[in-house]
Amino acid sequence: MTAQVAVIMGSKSDWETMSHACAVLEELGIPYEKNVVSAHRTPDLMFEFAEQAAERGLKVIIAGAGGAAHLPGMVAAKTTLPVIGVPVKSAALNGLDSLLSIVQMPGGIPVGTVAIGKAGAINAGLLAAQILGAFDPELMRRVQERRDRIREEVLASGAELEAAE
Amino acid sequence: MTAQVAVIMGSKSDWETMSHACAVLEELGIPYEKNVVSAHRTPDLMFEFAEQAAERGLKVIIAGAGGAAHLPGMVAAKTTLPVIGVPVKSAALNGLDSLLSIVQMPGGIPVGTVAIGKAGAINAGLLAAQILGAFDPELMRRVQERRDRIREEVLASGAELEAAE
Amino acid sequence: MTAQVAVIMGSKSDWETMSHACAVLEELGIPYEKNVVSAHRTPDLMFEFAEQAAERGLKVIIAGAGGAAHLPGMVAAKTTLPVIGVPVKSAALNGLDSLLSIVQMPGGIPVGTVAIGKAGAINAGLLAAQILGAFDPELMRRVQERRDRIREEVLASGAELEAAE
Amino acid sequence: MTAQVAVIMGSKSDWETMSHACAVLEELGIPYEKNVVSAHRTPDLMFEFAEQAAERGLKVIIAGAGGAAHLPGMVAAKTTLPVIGVPVKSAALNGLDSLLSIVQMPGGIPVGTVAIGKAGAINAGLLAAQILGAFDPELMRRVQERRDRIREEVLASGAELEAAE
Amino acid sequence: MTAQVAVIMGSKSDWETMSHACAVLEELGIPYEKNVVSAHRTPDLMFEFAEQAAERGLKVIIAGAGGAAHLPGMVAAKTTLPVIGVPVKSAALNGLDSLLSIVQMPGGIPVGTVAIGKAGAINAGLLAAQILGAFDPELMRRVQERRDRIREEVLASGAELEAAE
Amino acid sequence: MTAQVAVIMGSKSDWETMSHACAVLEELGIPYEKNVVSAHRTPDLMFEFAEQAAERGLKVIIAGAGGAAHLPGMVAAKTTLPVIGVPVKSAALNGLDSLLSIVQMPGGIPVGTVAIGKAGAINAGLLAAQILGAFDPELMRRVQERRDRIREEVLASGAELEAAE
Amino acid sequence: MTAQVAVIMGSKSDWETMSHACAVLEELGIPYEKNVVSAHRTPDLMFEFAEQAAERGLKVIIAGAGGAAHLPGMVAAKTTLPVIGVPVKSAALNGLDSLLSIVQMPGGIPVGTVAIGKAGAINAGLLAAQILGAFDPELMRRVQERRDRIREEVLASGAELEAAE
Amino acid sequence: MTAQVAVIMGSKSDWETMSHACAVLEELGIPYEKNVVSAHRTPDLMFEFAEQAAERGLKVIIAGAGGAAHLPGMVAAKTTLPVIGVPVKSAALNGLDSLLSIVQMPGGIPVGTVAIGKAGAINAGLLAAQILGAFDPELMRRVQERRDRIREEVLASGAELEAAE
Repeated sequence: MTAQVAVIMGSKSDWETMSHACAVLEELGIPYEKNVVSAHRTPDLMFEFAEQAAERGLKVIIAGAGGAAHLPGMVAAKTTLPVIGVPVKSAALNGLDSLLSIVQMPGGIPVGTVAIGKAGAINAGLLAAQILGAFDPELMRRVQERRDRIREEVLASGAELEAAE
Repeated sequence: MTAQVAVIMGSKSDWETMSHACAVLEELGIPYEKNVVSAHRTPDLMFEFAEQAAERGLKVIIAGAGGAAHLPGMVAAKTTLPVIGVPVKSAALNGLDSLLSIVQMPGGIPVGTVAIGKAGAINAGLLAAQILGAFDPELMRRVQERRDRIREEVLASGAELEAAE
Repeated sequence: MTAQVAVIMGSKSDWETMSHACAVLEELGIPYEKNVVSAHRTPDLMFEFAEQAAERGLKVIIAGAGGAAHLPGMVAAKTTLPVIGVPVKSAALNGLDSLLSIVQMPGGIPVGTVAIGKAGAINAGLLAAQILGAFDPELMRRVQERRDRIREEVLASGAELEAAE
Repeated sequence: MTAQVAVIMGSKSDWETMSHACAVLEELGIPYEKNVVSAHRTPDLMFEFAEQAAERGLKVIIAGAGGAAHLPGMVAAKTTLPVIGVPVKSAALNGLDSLLSIVQMPGGIPVGTVAIGKAGAINAGLLAAQILGAFDPELMRRVQERRDRIREEVLASGAELEAAE
Repeated sequence: MTAQVAVIMGSKSDWETMSHACAVLEELGIPYEKNVVSAHRTPDLMFEFAEQAAERGLKVIIAGAGGAAHLPGMVAAKTTLPVIGVPVKSAALNGLDSLLSIVQMPGGIPVGTVAIGKAGAINAGLLAAQILGAFDPELMRRVQERRDRIREEVLASGAELEAAE
Repeated sequence: MTAQVAVIMGSKSDWETMSHACAVLEELGIPYEKNVVSAHRTPDLMFEFAEQAAERGLKVIIAGAGGAAHLPGMVAAKTTLPVIGVPVKSAALNGLDSLLSIVQMPGGIPVGTVAIGKAGAINAGLLAAQILGAFDPELMRRVQERRDRIREEVLASGAELEAAE
Repeated sequence: MTAQVAVIMGSKSDWETMSHACAVLEELGIPYEKNVVSAHRTPDLMFEFAEQAAERGLKVIIAGAGGAAHLPGMVAAKTTLPVIGVPVKSAALNGLDSLLSIVQMPGGIPVGTVAIGKAGAINAGLLAAQILGAFDPELMRRVQERRDRIREEVLASGAELEAAE
Repeated sequence: MTAQVAVIMGSKSDWETMSHACAVLEELGIPYEKNVVSAHRTPDLMFEFAEQAAERGLKVIIAGAGGAAHLPGMVAAKTTLPVIGVPVKSAALNGLDSLLSIVQMPGGIPVGTVAIGKAGAINAGLLAAQILGAFDPELMRRVQERRDRIREEVLASGAELEAAE
């Protein structure tokens, strides 16, 4: 089945984070592809990827990177598909550099940025699902079911805490 | 025509920033609505708005707020439509508080966050357009045309600079 | 006995921090209740909780959350009881995001914010006790006794240090 | 009438900020007193003030200061009344220093901290009112009325924005 | 004469800052060219520029940009010429975002980063001169003379201050 | 022998850091005393200590504290002896809060602040020695000898590195 | 009369800040000298100054600088006199860079750092006075008198505020 | 063979970071020397080193330091050779202090700064190579080959990820 979402990351080491985005897409039954595309080490591949993304049938791109994280913004510069940026936690500055490098895009080229690290990767998968779901009621229903299930888990954990001594 | 995008903001004073999102939507011919919805001062309105957004035919919500900016995340908690958060520049901390309050959402409820202030508002409008455009080739063409026009402006300004003494 | 203080937290994982607030309340003999209430995953429960808090006899609410920590501020938006916010240390930014998301509330809806993490949770319990104690001399006396005891511990540790080689 | 709330500040120049706390107290009909008490320049006055606060009938203390803002924490160290700290915007660091100096109190001595600057001062007044209101239904009603009025203002500004071209 | 240094910037509005780099190059008699090249709005021009830079005879590239400043790093990814990055002061975060986006490059693709704003632009011009000067004794002499002249100015300003009442 | 320097700290847990200050004083043969004095938990002791410091023959006070670190500034407010502040690394914010709470004193009451943590504690001991040494040539000689010895160690480590393959 | 304190600064533009240190020294009758000494533009003068400072009879050195502020630390490296560092507010980062560059000295070479900007300059003058005063009772008395006078001013401003409607 | 690059560091403990710069130089066959030179503990050696660097045949200097990292800037003040600064990760502030101390140089004395820690050290080696390579086509070819090899590694890791379940 044609991938609707591409999950790309600047380095193989980002997989630990970005795998959480893929897990969400899988859970929701959204066809996706994944790849390592480095803005700095494979710039031509990056441009080629971004240029062909729309015609290949992709609808949303999730891009994760750390430090001077240029991947999401540069992909966004070469496609009009919506791009979701995931700031990967960096060695020295804990991902604050990644976050600012991704979110502070100049007017003209948007990147929808999510939280630093694992929570952000999960939410990137969900945001992609919600974008697709806005035009796919059946998918939207599955997103809602996932939320309902998590709500139940929170309620159960609350009940457990309430009852604890 | 039914609005496809809602632009909401936490306070009337955010209009100076958020008007840039509306201007982009207008320029691209996307039907939208705008309102002041305060997470803290009109919480019930906010929940009502978020709950009804999908059934009212909205496809994307843009929410701008400053300081402890809870509006985008709380709206996102009550709808499965994609929510774009715009951190409005704040009085003391220049919008760093707004940015972190919007972008650092826990896994489960995504907000696609854009840059602080005017550039972010412009990009919120564009990201909404790109989300819609992923399913509307004609709109995508208009987004691309806007980019082409801006590229020409940059090239012209470069030519001018090159030629200057 | 009717709870006077509610200790709520955005996630079960916040219990490690928030248990310190409960320990203080217990130590001072203040009836309290505890629960998991997530702004983002159980928004309706949150509103219901906040709306009913005063009529249920609660006098003070302690709310702990991390990251884009919306729980304290959103509860505060739905009750006129005093709300104390505890910023829980977050994975990437060490609780700076939690702190700013909680403390930078707009004019109109206050949250009394304490320190990030364990010290803040302890102080949330104490601040609740002091609020109650302002109208309950016997409780105020117990708060003062706790301080006296701790002062003695500090003095003893100082004497020990002074004497050490 | 005996003051229930004291509004103190580290320097006369903090009045521009702290006047907003007084305005709220006045609006809600809460008897209060105001003074300049400097932790660093009048330390003895500060201790005397804090030691006598409870017996003088005060119920809540609001303390504003900027930079290395020691006033709220030191007053809190000398009284068991609830202390609300207002970080005043500072010359170089925009109040981030004030905020951290006030909020990061060690376990044992709480200060309920509000936002930097004017919004924080307003909220300090409101938080004091809500603390008193937890034991004074008539005051609580006035706090609620103030909220209702502000909600109407937000709704009106939203209606105006919605209607605007 | 063939340009040895190219001064490029992400936006025409960066000229106010980057003109200081050009002024230094002019003062030292180094042939240079200048242009607006936007990573996000003219990505193809950027790649073309970077790919051809070495064969066109350039020896050093100075690239200035603000916010999510991707220009220096992306140019560096497409050329093995030394690239000097100038973080331009940004609207909300005063250039901290620009600085981190430029300097925190991953291992493999270096950008030599200078200070935020005007001082950085001046130093970018000087660093380019010193790189060329390491292989051009006559240019190195001119760099040294410039330093000597500035040292004399500092000494004179010191003498003036010393003598002042 | 009468202590010339007092090393005080806000909590017994600060001893791990502050012991480095004592070690330097011991090494240089400077009589000193050490104690735990908490601004928040033993405020009266703190004032008493500060008020009597000069008449007891102390010449310099070293005060270490973490978080909302009020000890150095409050001691400084109660004595005209020079006070050196050591920001102890804090749990959540790594000592940035301690640093700002100590160094950002208002005009009128100075605290000479050193680096966060161990390096700062060592330097507090040395700065105390240098203050005393400005009036004690024999002590100044010992300070210089310590520097000479450390310089030799650096030179030796450099020689070792140079020689290594 | 031989200067006891030297006030040096990295640039003539720092005089606006550093003049406040000189004003305090003048007010307290302490003989001082002032000069512009730039770590980066007059490094040899800086070393010469630092090497000769002690033998010229100076007792304390006050050094102010902004940005990558190396002057205080480098002077401290070349003298065993106590050095007080004043972080001058910088163009982009408001003096946070100046502060960290001055205060975060490695173990071995201390700089007693004061607040950013004017308050810091005033306190540098006072700290120098207190260092000298520890060995000069008459000067210490004048420092105390200055404090007493300022305390009276604070008390007066408090009385005025208390009395105001 | 005469060293073309010197790799110096402020402390032996920086070797763990700076060894990565040396490894790159070795890999590319660039003759280099390495040494410990401390701005604060061996200031005279530092000046001597910097003054003689050009005449000894060095072309580029790489200087790494942490905390109040003055070494790169002070060496730059004493030579007109290009200086590359490596911010070493510091104990408390993770290298943010090192970065700002190195990069925020005043106009007149440039330091080309790279990323904090290991990535920065690698890039310092590469930037030195690229500076030399701008005048040495054979070296430039080796730099390009290194990039090509790394690109292949990224592509391979991408292919592996793509293929993984």
